[in-house]
Amino acid sequence: MKIALINPNSTAGMTEKARLAAAQFAAPGTEIMASNPPDTPPSIEGHYDEAVSVPGLLAEIQKAESAGADGFVVACFDDPGLAACREIARGPVVGICEAAMHFASVIAASFSVITTLPRAVPIVEELARKYGKEHLCKKVRAADIPVLDLEEAGNAAEEKISAEISCAVLEDRSEAVILGCAGMADLAARLSAKHKIPVIDGVVCAVKLCEGIVGAGLQTSKICAFNYPRKK
Amino acid sequence: MKIALINPNSTAGMTEKARLAAAQFAAPGTEIMASNPPDTPPSIEGHYDEAVSVPGLLAEIQKAESAGADGFVVACFDDPGLAACREIARGPVVGICEAAMHFASVIAASFSVITTLPRAVPIVEELARKYGKEHLCKKVRAADIPVLDLEEAGNAAEEKISAEISCAVLEDRSEAVILGCAGMADLAARLSAKHKIPVIDGVVCAVKLCEGIVGAGLQTSKICAFNYPRKK
Amino acid sequence: MKIALINPNSTAGMTEKARLAAAQFAAPGTEIMASNPPDTPPSIEGHYDEAVSVPGLLAEIQKAESAGADGFVVACFDDPGLAACREIARGPVVGICEAAMHFASVIAASFSVITTLPRAVPIVEELARKYGKEHLCKKVRAADIPVLDLEEAGNAAEEKISAEISCAVLEDRSEAVILGCAGMADLAARLSAKHKIPVIDGVVCAVKLCEGIVGAGLQTSKICAFNYPRKK
Amino acid sequence: MKIALINPNSTAGMTEKARLAAAQFAAPGTEIMASNPPDTPPSIEGHYDEAVSVPGLLAEIQKAESAGADGFVVACFDDPGLAACREIARGPVVGICEAAMHFASVIAASFSVITTLPRAVPIVEELARKYGKEHLCKKVRAADIPVLDLEEAGNAAEEKISAEISCAVLEDRSEAVILGCAGMADLAARLSAKHKIPVIDGVVCAVKLCEGIVGAGLQTSKICAFNYPRKK
Amino acid sequence: MKIALINPNSTAGMTEKARLAAAQFAAPGTEIMASNPPDTPPSIEGHYDEAVSVPGLLAEIQKAESAGADGFVVACFDDPGLAACREIARGPVVGICEAAMHFASVIAASFSVITTLPRAVPIVEELARKYGKEHLCKKVRAADIPVLDLEEAGNAAEEKISAEISCAVLEDRSEAVILGCAGMADLAARLSAKHKIPVIDGVVCAVKLCEGIVGAGLQTSKICAFNYPRKK
Amino acid sequence: MKIALINPNSTAGMTEKARLAAAQFAAPGTEIMASNPPDTPPSIEGHYDEAVSVPGLLAEIQKAESAGADGFVVACFDDPGLAACREIARGPVVGICEAAMHFASVIAASFSVITTLPRAVPIVEELARKYGKEHLCKKVRAADIPVLDLEEAGNAAEEKISAEISCAVLEDRSEAVILGCAGMADLAARLSAKHKIPVIDGVVCAVKLCEGIVGAGLQTSKICAFNYPRKK
Repeated sequence: MKIALINPNSTAGMTEKARLAAAQFAAPGTEIMASNPPDTPPSIEGHYDEAVSVPGLLAEIQKAESAGADGFVVACFDDPGLAACREIARGPVVGICEAAMHFASVIAASFSVITTLPRAVPIVEELARKYGKEHLCKKVRAADIPVLDLEEAGNAAEEKISAEISCAVLEDRSEAVILGCAGMADLAARLSAKHKIPVIDGVVCAVKLCEGIVGAGLQTSKICAFNYPRKK
Repeated sequence: MKIALINPNSTAGMTEKARLAAAQFAAPGTEIMASNPPDTPPSIEGHYDEAVSVPGLLAEIQKAESAGADGFVVACFDDPGLAACREIARGPVVGICEAAMHFASVIAASFSVITTLPRAVPIVEELARKYGKEHLCKKVRAADIPVLDLEEAGNAAEEKISAEISCAVLEDRSEAVILGCAGMADLAARLSAKHKIPVIDGVVCAVKLCEGIVGAGLQTSKICAFNYPRKK
Repeated sequence: MKIALINPNSTAGMTEKARLAAAQFAAPGTEIMASNPPDTPPSIEGHYDEAVSVPGLLAEIQKAESAGADGFVVACFDDPGLAACREIARGPVVGICEAAMHFASVIAASFSVITTLPRAVPIVEELARKYGKEHLCKKVRAADIPVLDLEEAGNAAEEKISAEISCAVLEDRSEAVILGCAGMADLAARLSAKHKIPVIDGVVCAVKLCEGIVGAGLQTSKICAFNYPRKK
Repeated sequence: MKIALINPNSTAGMTEKARLAAAQFAAPGTEIMASNPPDTPPSIEGHYDEAVSVPGLLAEIQKAESAGADGFVVACFDDPGLAACREIARGPVVGICEAAMHFASVIAASFSVITTLPRAVPIVEELARKYGKEHLCKKVRAADIPVLDLEEAGNAAEEKISAEISCAVLEDRSEAVILGCAGMADLAARLSAKHKIPVIDGVVCAVKLCEGIVGAGLQTSKICAFNYPRKK
Repeated sequence: MKIALINPNSTAGMTEKARLAAAQFAAPGTEIMASNPPDTPPSIEGHYDEAVSVPGLLAEIQKAESAGADGFVVACFDDPGLAACREIARGPVVGICEAAMHFASVIAASFSVITTLPRAVPIVEELARKYGKEHLCKKVRAADIPVLDLEEAGNAAEEKISAEISCAVLEDRSEAVILGCAGMADLAARLSAKHKIPVIDGVVCAVKLCEGIVGAGLQTSKICAFNYPRKK
Repeated sequence: MKIALINPNSTAGMTEKARLAAAQFAAPGTEIMASNPPDTPPSIEGHYDEAVSVPGLLAEIQKAESAGADGFVVACFDDPGLAACREIARGPVVGICEAAMHFASVIAASFSVITTLPRAVPIVEELARKYGKEHLCKKVRAADIPVLDLEEAGNAAEEKISAEISCAVLEDRSEAVILGCAGMADLAARLSAKHKIPVIDGVVCAVKLCEGIVGAGLQTSKICAFNYPRKK
């Protein structure tokens, strides 16, 4: 099975970090095809960054489908462009926020999300509501880290995120934590061990959910909303 | 007051139709600056068309702000890219779906939306839920008309929409009807007179709502979510 | 265009304050017809005050319609009697709470409301839910000011409200603030400048929304719920 | 225990019909004090009728409390003025719509409401949402009967309501039916026997719920929202 | 009227405490038939305890119906097995959480629930959502008391619960408090007097609600969902 | 990886049918351990059947965990006892209704569920609401087939279900169909091919979702709600 893992921003280091996380957890027969568009912003921090990244993301989806991808993961926690991707792909298209929330709802009675900058908080809150998880999502917290700081050696991100996890447990009384950025994929295991609760990385969840949907023989419904775009 | 009216698709005829509707209802001091991006799809019929139109829409917003626009109307009923537009504009950015639903909620106890193609139905249903109007929106109906057919002389659109309005009244028991496409702006008055209920065109509503917000001295909050995009 | 601005309580000073706010922001061609019933309570602080004010409010609506009003604003933040007013008026009837929340939802990702007394808090919370804005309304705060204190020279209201705005920004992480009483209309501009976020007065929003709906040629649907009361 | 049963309209025949229903089901020690205001509309058919009836209703509540009433039932299915009544009463104030919906939710997995005129439908739909029962309330149906026709001998109401019950079972797949008007209180038992599902009259439910709350030693909370109106 | 009051756990002391509370408030003609299954866990603290108690509870329901019970109360705040009980009983089956929330919604604008252990908090939150009361339920608080400690003389429960009530008033701004465990039934009156707000015990509410539904002549709908289990 | 697939009813034929479906789609390294309790009802058709099956289900979960199961699937579309199972298992516990709805939400804009008997309809509707999918679930349809008829050769189930799928597409305008009974697992592929939309079997979805969660290294959170049951 081939799964295209597409990082919508143009920072190759983040693509590689996501690829490593995916590869570590992918099933034996799964081939991860990681890519990013060449000319989107280096990080996605807000609706504008999302919007200008989506055309590049769509182009990567089309390339990957031509290259035989059976399923697709969009590796940005804002889940940008999911519905548009679904129109141009046969295989399932999975967002890392939606996957993380579905997984969290199976293993925990509630969760908090820890994201990067404060401006991402209302975006994730709106996604929780869109996905029907607002009753489970106790709080969306910002660790106040610009996305690209996650890529720098010696950054203080892990410490800041760890402090937010403590608050999520003590103040929000959440029973799991979702890391709200693809760039945090390398931290999940260590933070989970430290805090003794599930710390969930969306990249891995999305790859596994995508494997599952493809493995179940299911594809995107082409009967109406997600049919291929009309020719003009 | 200058209001930029931006049609995100590239069909100049639709831009002109929207401009005429806006101009007819604009307040005396309002200047309507109508435009469309040069190279977006000729019509927006689904999420993909939306996604690839948004960068062009954003460019028009920026041009209009530089040209002194005080407020902005996005003249596509899917309300594409609204949040991204809000990040790059000072003045308020109003979608025609949101404006139509706000206006309808003031003058009617419920409403139905009549849109073009069936694939637009789930898009509008999701908008109704996003805007907290799902309890007022009795049904979203498709008249089964491709958007560009609305531009052709002698099209059967008015008849089809009229038939759907009858159903909205009799079956949905709706007390107002919203026309779910900027390309229907010219039909509202005639259909309203015929069916004796409010038939609401979103373009006009959005222009009037935008005039109102600008006139109230209000601008987009720049404190967090809609702050200007971060420099990379 | 004539807009009737009706303060449902009987304190002429509040009516005049609302009229001044409305007049300052009304469009050139708009005539504001401000009035209040002669014998309702001097302030509306709770459901009982609302209930006993509504018949007087309805009489003012009828008088104003006879006097040629094209639209109506009910200038009390509890939005008392809106639906009843809609049954007896042709023109649109706009509440100041609903208008403020609609405007806020266009320019900000979230908002807090700052009202007068604690007993108003559940009333506004219920309105937010009724209008489908509960996901945007982060908190309703009481500044603990009786309504009529707002009319006294040298009152401490502005200071108390300002302190609540600071909390709304820091604790609620709200991106706009709505002033939850018609008697606060004079404070919005100054507080907005001080706190650098939109501080929204419902009176002005309602007047502008009403102008917009009238200007769009729309009237209250008379097909069912808001038809004129049945003769007995 | 004394329970004040107040019909907010001024039709003594409806008050008596409600009193009979209440008396038939009241517990041995319960005294039903039935009354109606002298000068409200003869029937409540819409928001305007509600609004102009509430001051008279409030006066009856105050008289009844002075006369020693331990609890209060407002016998109009629109539940007009409940919150205002709660501010001026110590004992619990129960609406017939809310009581019927609470009772229905205990004995049935879903229900339909059958009301009088179409204009009452959105009122009841809004109440279902307000009370958090919209997921149980499959449909609100109008039997298309003016309220006062229920008072006339030989009216066709029972037949029309019976036809709607059949639709509620077959089309809505509802498992109980609520009669949406105090004037239908005499029909519940016969229709229930005929259709073999619970047919619920709100007057009886409200009297029994009120008996229960009083009997449990509970009174209206006076800590904030329902505290006595502030003296001016 | 005979009401079966069934404590699903096997601690006879709790059954007796619930019986005493019920008997104190039951109407003159009501006979309380209290029982508990012989071999369920001594307390219900979580979903597992619930699940293994339900078959014993169902057996008690069947015994009570054979013994002529007209209605049934399940005296555990998690409302375990309600729907299953409804399938095998003719008379209404009332849960103590649902009854407490229905009563609270009549007498107060909002409420907090104070339960035993933290693990009960998400259970009660889910019930509030299921019953459509999440907008009224400001917070579910745990007093951090194992259920059986409530049965021991000299326990500190009352003090801990009292402290939580203070928080419910000051922090949650709740206007009533529901005691979230059948084992707290003896504390309601004293705590209500101390804190001057309604402190609501679900056992009493459920008995009174059950009396009311039986007294109204209503029984569980047998038309579909709550019909008797199918014979295999 | 070992996944325990537990059919809560005692019909070995259904267990085997589910095992076959699971085995056909399981990943190469997955061992399916299928079982059913020995003495639960032969089919689960309502809340009572659910309730009396759960203790047997819990025993199977415990046996499977002792036998080294890494994850668990409860193969009954009512998702009985999920939360209780989560308390006694380390590995994730997945319900077939929840898994099917999560998968459907990724590949389709809306879905209908086709279940067996009408009495299952409100159960599934409540699950859709519990899982936050009520806006995607257009309708729950009953094919009017007793569960055990699905086990008989020459039954008319496929035809009836096929007819309901046609209605789901034409009337509900759903874009995918979920088969609402573990006993329908063998029909999904054929019906999907015939109707050209995704026809989703929950057993396969749950197995794949469980594989995914286990494969992601995630286990049930033991911090509070799903901690092991307290010793008494």
